[in-house]
Amino acid sequence: MELSPDWVVGFVDGEGCFHVSVNRHPEMTIGYQVLPEFVVVQHQRDVQILHALKRFFRGGVVRVNHGERWCFRARKLETLEQVCSFFQRHPLKTKKQIDFVKFRKVVRLVGSKEHLTAEGVKKVIGLAKTMNLADPQRFEDVLADLGEG
Amino acid sequence: MELSPDWVVGFVDGEGCFHVSVNRHPEMTIGYQVLPEFVVVQHQRDVQILHALKRFFRGGVVRVNHGERWCFRARKLETLEQVCSFFQRHPLKTKKQIDFVKFRKVVRLVGSKEHLTAEGVKKVIGLAKTMNLADPQRFEDVLADLGEG
Repeated sequence: MELSPDWVVGFVDGEGCFHVSVNRHPEMTIGYQVLPEFVVVQHQRDVQILHALKRFFRGGVVRVNHGERWCFRARKLETLEQVCSFFQRHPLKTKKQIDFVKFRKVVRLVGSKEHLTAEGVKKVIGLAKTMNLADPQRFEDVLADLGEG
Repeated sequence: MELSPDWVVGFVDGEGCFHVSVNRHPEMTIGYQVLPEFVVVQHQRDVQILHALKRFFRGGVVRVNHGERWCFRARKLETLEQVCSFFQRHPLKTKKQIDFVKFRKVVRLVGSKEHLTAEGVKKVIGLAKTMNLADPQRFEDVLADLGEG
């Protein structure tokens, strides 16, 4: 199945999710791991669409999400940079574009390794806490732990 | 906002719904009304997308759906024929295409006024009962009432 750029933009405007989490990770110097991910979830009947997205973005994985729901998920920096490059050239039309712009900034912070510093994690949280699905209290807890309540 | 055909296909693959209901309607000779509708629901923050779809399909209405959810909805035969003509030229890529093919047959039955006969309503139910969101028992009740259990 061949996907056109405009089809991908329309489908992701409907079904895509740009998500950033900050998880406790004792093995990292700063104690937290920044995890940006791009996810598209579909019922298993349309798993072939998820594989087509994986080919389109030349990366990511197709996995069971929950029950009969499957997902295409990109977490690796290289793939996320491909995803960001694509949506910069082909902007989303819904308000999801606002999330994407913040997501792209987070991916850049990861690319420059700033996310490995307390300042970098604070910048990530500043961006992530106003994104869809964000859990503001959770981010406040991390900020408090990093010395800025 | 200008929508491209491929974007519309991608967005409807994600967010669109082809729906057929058969409702009791005492004023109609056959006692039932066949109601095919094409619906796209969005959060109110993206209501401008729904208006763009209305312009794209040259018909339909934009209405509150439920709470903060709004919808673009096409019910008029003329608009549904536009919608069907578009998706015939630009096929959906997900399994929603299977629903669309049945939906198009229902729209044709309405266009030829077959839906005003008991035979036509039975044909509509035969198509609609295997579509997404269908309520099979409800259709069985109508069939029983029309003399075919």
